Amino acid sequence: MSDAKIRLYVDQPLAGGQPVPLTQDQAHYLFGVMRLARGAPVLLFNGRDGEWRAEVTDVGKRGGSLVCVAQSAPLMMPPDLWLMFAPIKKARTDFIVEKAAEMGAARILPVQTRFTNSERIRQDRLQAHAVEAAEQCGGTFVPEVADLEPLDRLLDGWPADRRIMWCDESLVGARAGLLAAAGAGPARGFEDAPGAADPGPWAILIGPEGGFSDAEQARLRRMAQVVPVSLGPRILRADTAAVAALALWQSVLGDWV
Amino acid sequence: MSDAKIRLYVDQPLAGGQPVPLTQDQAHYLFGVMRLARGAPVLLFNGRDGEWRAEVTDVGKRGGSLVCVAQSAPLMMPPDLWLMFAPIKKARTDFIVEKAAEMGAARILPVQTRFTNSERIRQDRLQAHAVEAAEQCGGTFVPEVADLEPLDRLLDGWPADRRIMWCDESLVGARAGLLAAAGAGPARGFEDAPGAADPGPWAILIGPEGGFSDAEQARLRRMAQVVPVSLGPRILRADTAAVAALALWQSVLGDWV
Repeated sequence: MSDAKIRLYVDQPLAGGQPVPLTQDQAHYLFGVMRLARGAPVLLFNGRDGEWRAEVTDVGKRGGSLVCVAQSAPLMMPPDLWLMFAPIKKARTDFIVEKAAEMGAARILPVQTRFTNSERIRQDRLQAHAVEAAEQCGGTFVPEVADLEPLDRLLDGWPADRRIMWCDESLVGARAGLLAAAGAGPARGFEDAPGAADPGPWAILIGPEGGFSDAEQARLRRMAQVVPVSLGPRILRADTAAVAALALWQSVLGDWV
Repeated sequence: MSDAKIRLYVDQPLAGGQPVPLTQDQAHYLFGVMRLARGAPVLLFNGRDGEWRAEVTDVGKRGGSLVCVAQSAPLMMPPDLWLMFAPIKKARTDFIVEKAAEMGAARILPVQTRFTNSERIRQDRLQAHAVEAAEQCGGTFVPEVADLEPLDRLLDGWPADRRIMWCDESLVGARAGLLAAAGAGPARGFEDAPGAADPGPWAILIGPEGGFSDAEQARLRRMAQVVPVSLGPRILRADTAAVAALALWQSVLGDWV
């Protein structure tokens, strides 16, 4: 454990001896709110270079700087897992992004479906939520939050090798479905031993509260990459389904072993 | 599908031809807010008799009544799974109760641990959240939310046959841990086929943000009923851990098959 209580996401490169200039907001937080003085320790990460113990070298009202002392944790990349979801009410959308960052999604893609209510999202606000979740939870990686994109357009250019865990009202339970899909993967001898092999690129797809349209469902069923699975006999809200699906995928194919 | 858009939890018994008197709050909601008229359909459930299609027979400002017409869904009991968690900030505690009701916990037990911040909870408010989650999500069962109780006292009288999925920093992944525990169950030939056997009574235990004290950890490790499992390499917030644990338990031992 480090004596540093504060974890901060920064844009700059991190390496031994590297000075890290602060933005006005960061300086306000560290010196105005948290009252740090010269020499105080802070943990820094940038999503690329792991976590670094740094110390305050320069305290200013509108800026300041730190210097990196030593790496305190290596970069931990999540599995190559995307989360696609149809944005819902603001608080629940924020929640999905926070949870996806905590649970180890690599990329977060808000998608517009036929029955999605939202016409637009605040990408910058959602990205800030992902950063904050990583700061709080000890993560060294921050998933990118993409801009809202129509599901149809996303599927038009969908990579042939990226499977989609589609949470619909399938009769196949998620665990069985994921294991079967992994076993059936092209030239991949996946055993029912978690983490036995790289599962390859995946995405989770969570629908809006109104479900998917008939045309969307037909399209998804035709795609070879799609693995339809059930999340149990109860109707789950979209945010619950997102967290449940992330947990199940991670425990069967990901790094929760 | 029924033409009734509204699902309402009531206390009264439900059966064919059964009249159901409304409280003042319910009458205000149905007639003042939702503007239902005589003959309008409503879905009712009470947590015991399944879901019933009812019709408005009497519209009043301070009351009114419905009559049960036909059962629209049987009672669906969740598995015998309790969720124990240390209450955290209000919004996140509300969230845990909502999710537990959605995901099929049978009983919700807020526990006070050494490092729990809350001294008290509003049991009635949390119970109302569980009811609302069941109303929204098509559930026919409502888990009971117990009063806050010290973890130590709860463990003093812990039933010999109720296992505890303890989400700590164990090296054993949750899926593997649950399967092994189920396989090792007394006189129970559990296969690695979900739902192959009744898993018996279980509880999930989620710690507070400060973790468990050394004494609590030592006590839990000594209990034969306790199955320590890991929820992956990232630090999860308590509310994330609760939803993830419920999903994993349900997918391995519960009714998400």
